Amino acid sequence: MSSDPHRVVIVGGGFGGLFAAQALRRAPVEVTLVDRLNHHLFQPLLYQVATGILSEGEIAPPLRGVLHRHQNIEVELAEVTKFDLDGRTVTVMRPDGVFLERPYDSLIVAAGAGQSYFGHDEFSRWAPGMKTINDALELRGRILGAFEMAELEADPERRKGWLTFVVVGGGPTGVEIAGQIAELSRRVLKDDFREIDSRSARILLFDGGKEVLAGFGDHLSAKGAQGLEHLGVEIHTESIVTSVDRTGVVVKSGGTEQRIEAGTKVWAAGVQASPLAKLLADGSGAECDRAGRIKVLPDCTIPGHPEVFAIGDMMAMDDLPGVAEVAMQQGIHASSTIKRRLSGKETKHFRYRDLGSMATISRFRAVVSFKKIRLSGFLGWLVWVFVHLAFLTGFKNRLATIPRWAITFIGNSRPERTITMQQIIGRVAIDEAGGRPYLLSLASDDEPQKPEDETPE
Amino acid sequence: MSSDPHRVVIVGGGFGGLFAAQALRRAPVEVTLVDRLNHHLFQPLLYQVATGILSEGEIAPPLRGVLHRHQNIEVELAEVTKFDLDGRTVTVMRPDGVFLERPYDSLIVAAGAGQSYFGHDEFSRWAPGMKTINDALELRGRILGAFEMAELEADPERRKGWLTFVVVGGGPTGVEIAGQIAELSRRVLKDDFREIDSRSARILLFDGGKEVLAGFGDHLSAKGAQGLEHLGVEIHTESIVTSVDRTGVVVKSGGTEQRIEAGTKVWAAGVQASPLAKLLADGSGAECDRAGRIKVLPDCTIPGHPEVFAIGDMMAMDDLPGVAEVAMQQGIHASSTIKRRLSGKETKHFRYRDLGSMATISRFRAVVSFKKIRLSGFLGWLVWVFVHLAFLTGFKNRLATIPRWAITFIGNSRPERTITMQQIIGRVAIDEAGGRPYLLSLASDDEPQKPEDETPE
Repeated sequence: MSSDPHRVVIVGGGFGGLFAAQALRRAPVEVTLVDRLNHHLFQPLLYQVATGILSEGEIAPPLRGVLHRHQNIEVELAEVTKFDLDGRTVTVMRPDGVFLERPYDSLIVAAGAGQSYFGHDEFSRWAPGMKTINDALELRGRILGAFEMAELEADPERRKGWLTFVVVGGGPTGVEIAGQIAELSRRVLKDDFREIDSRSARILLFDGGKEVLAGFGDHLSAKGAQGLEHLGVEIHTESIVTSVDRTGVVVKSGGTEQRIEAGTKVWAAGVQASPLAKLLADGSGAECDRAGRIKVLPDCTIPGHPEVFAIGDMMAMDDLPGVAEVAMQQGIHASSTIKRRLSGKETKHFRYRDLGSMATISRFRAVVSFKKIRLSGFLGWLVWVFVHLAFLTGFKNRLATIPRWAITFIGNSRPERTITMQQIIGRVAIDEAGGRPYLLSLASDDEPQKPEDETPE
Repeated sequence: MSSDPHRVVIVGGGFGGLFAAQALRRAPVEVTLVDRLNHHLFQPLLYQVATGILSEGEIAPPLRGVLHRHQNIEVELAEVTKFDLDGRTVTVMRPDGVFLERPYDSLIVAAGAGQSYFGHDEFSRWAPGMKTINDALELRGRILGAFEMAELEADPERRKGWLTFVVVGGGPTGVEIAGQIAELSRRVLKDDFREIDSRSARILLFDGGKEVLAGFGDHLSAKGAQGLEHLGVEIHTESIVTSVDRTGVVVKSGGTEQRIEAGTKVWAAGVQASPLAKLLADGSGAECDRAGRIKVLPDCTIPGHPEVFAIGDMMAMDDLPGVAEVAMQQGIHASSTIKRRLSGKETKHFRYRDLGSMATISRFRAVVSFKKIRLSGFLGWLVWVFVHLAFLTGFKNRLATIPRWAITFIGNSRPERTITMQQIIGRVAIDEAGGRPYLLSLASDDEPQKPEDETPE
């Protein structure tokens, strides 16, 4: 008598979910990987999409394509709306709003984290985060659009505002995007404008802590700060951004508050676990921490449900950092636990192997921390190039990325500077009267100026 | 006594406007090129963006970047709203809705053409055209999304609908997109799905005329049709699409009408000149033809205004076709006329040199018509590759495109399959209650099914 194969549902196709799925490719299980988007995202290079170096496809390959060889794995484009932990089913919603139920024997939830505005979600309208392809394309439109607006703006104060870029958060993401905005203004765009000098752009990086790249240790942190300052980025540590609006920010530093006019704001300051963490916690009685992450047991399962794993950025365990490496290793661990159980072997606790961290500062300059090794400058950059090429998903993406990086780093150009109206969807206000989309993020007044008798007909 | 330099305003950065600007790069004139988007668009390859072969940046380089070496040329991101032909000023609207006036001594209007639905603009919601990067990205989302929906759809009739693709119009654009959808379904996606066989997709091409690729002549037209049929595209000539809705189309052929259920529709059937053609005609007393194109004099100027040129897809002259070559040559002609006048030389009438036409049918197969030469099959394809690489704007884009085409044609893959929610802006309905964006084009009911008690909180 043969029994039905063991069914594994994986929620999320990020580093955790993808590595979990791949680790089950030869196991006697049926896997369903559910994601609300069709792609895996190589998030560490998202800042390169935002600044025109790479295209979406190069860092966001289709999950279906990545996994197509593995016949025991299905991919579904749907969004999880409910967990029934007792009935062992997940409810998903298709893109057309129809709900489907998916039964499981084991469940791996790897839904990641979004940007956190620390209770000020209203900032998000003016200061997009850096979490999705959407975010990156929107930022691309805003960053390049700010230079366009400065070129057209005759008023010196407003022009200065368009040429001021504020990055909130001094972790790797904040440092990398600040560095690339500086590269754009100092090098790439310097001959492109007639009315403005793009090199005069101010780039301000604010961080609440004592130093940028705090996780890298004093030495690299100082090297990183030096590199950014060399590019002209103004670093302000122990500075909290307390307000963000259309034309600027308010920053609190020491006892004083200061307003800075800035057309473009990037938020790279905090993360908030996917709402699915709370949904899972509510269903199981597990706890969530302040960042909304579900507290898991040492084997990455949730209390009372050894068949349910929560991994990656949405879970809390010891003091593990919210980095891709943790998600990948936990994905492999969860799948390995499922396989061990099926073959009657004893399972293990998750143990994290720290493989270090790195961040680019500018062209030819990066900081790398790996065990006792600390690299910076050109040597660090070479390691960065090598490691990122090695980790990019798929040989073909690596092949396509090499000429991009050659164009960017040697040719000093940017292959992806196309802005479409649609890249600013969340911010587009349709003028119902004329059906004309105004780019609200670029608007000089909250109410767009209406064409009067000037318009055709 | 030195006089102010001659001011040239160019409207539109397509083939006509860009070539006009480049032809003025060493002339003693000040050029302002105005476009409402930041990029030139290499429209002949738009179908490759729609089917995941190329990224936006590769066919849509920033105008500012292309022209940055020429100090006498300024680029402005703005939309023209008014011509004052007597006062010789153009009114433009900045992205933030502010109006600016731009005086000119010579004006070159090259605003191109959009899709025409022959009086049925309501079709556009369900059958996007192929004119802009937005169109291409939306179609990419729809085409790839249709396969995703088919995979999730249990009902056999609906699934069949998702796997049916209708292309309206059998010119080069229609033929090329139909061929690439077939390539996707037959080759690229064939191992990616578990519930459906992507190869079972139906691709239907409708054209009102007697044959596809009518402009190429009988021989190549037949070769093109054979190539498509070899890929499994069903060609229906003398067939008019009389109705388009969410789930299908109605086609009239001979005396009978037939309804076909099809989730994805592409409109490549007609063009309508930019509304700026009418604006210009109203201001000058010139006439427009049925496609909204302004009738110009033999030197591409408009009656009574020898300083105003209308070129490319928005003008009508003799029976010139609406192709890139005409726009390019007219752009050069207009600039040459301006230069001749400034140096007191006699001006000339525009004369079109027909450089032939070509269309890809599938991987390794294209048709090429050049003077008396007719090529098809692999040889035609080699010529196609060579010519398109030669004409792509910028060495760097060519460098980046080569590995893309290697991946696509030799590797049989698609580097750009990322779908973001934002790529369907025009069709996204925000569910105000939950703030959740539904993909209306994928909706199985006009009203998306509302989550009830299933939703979190």
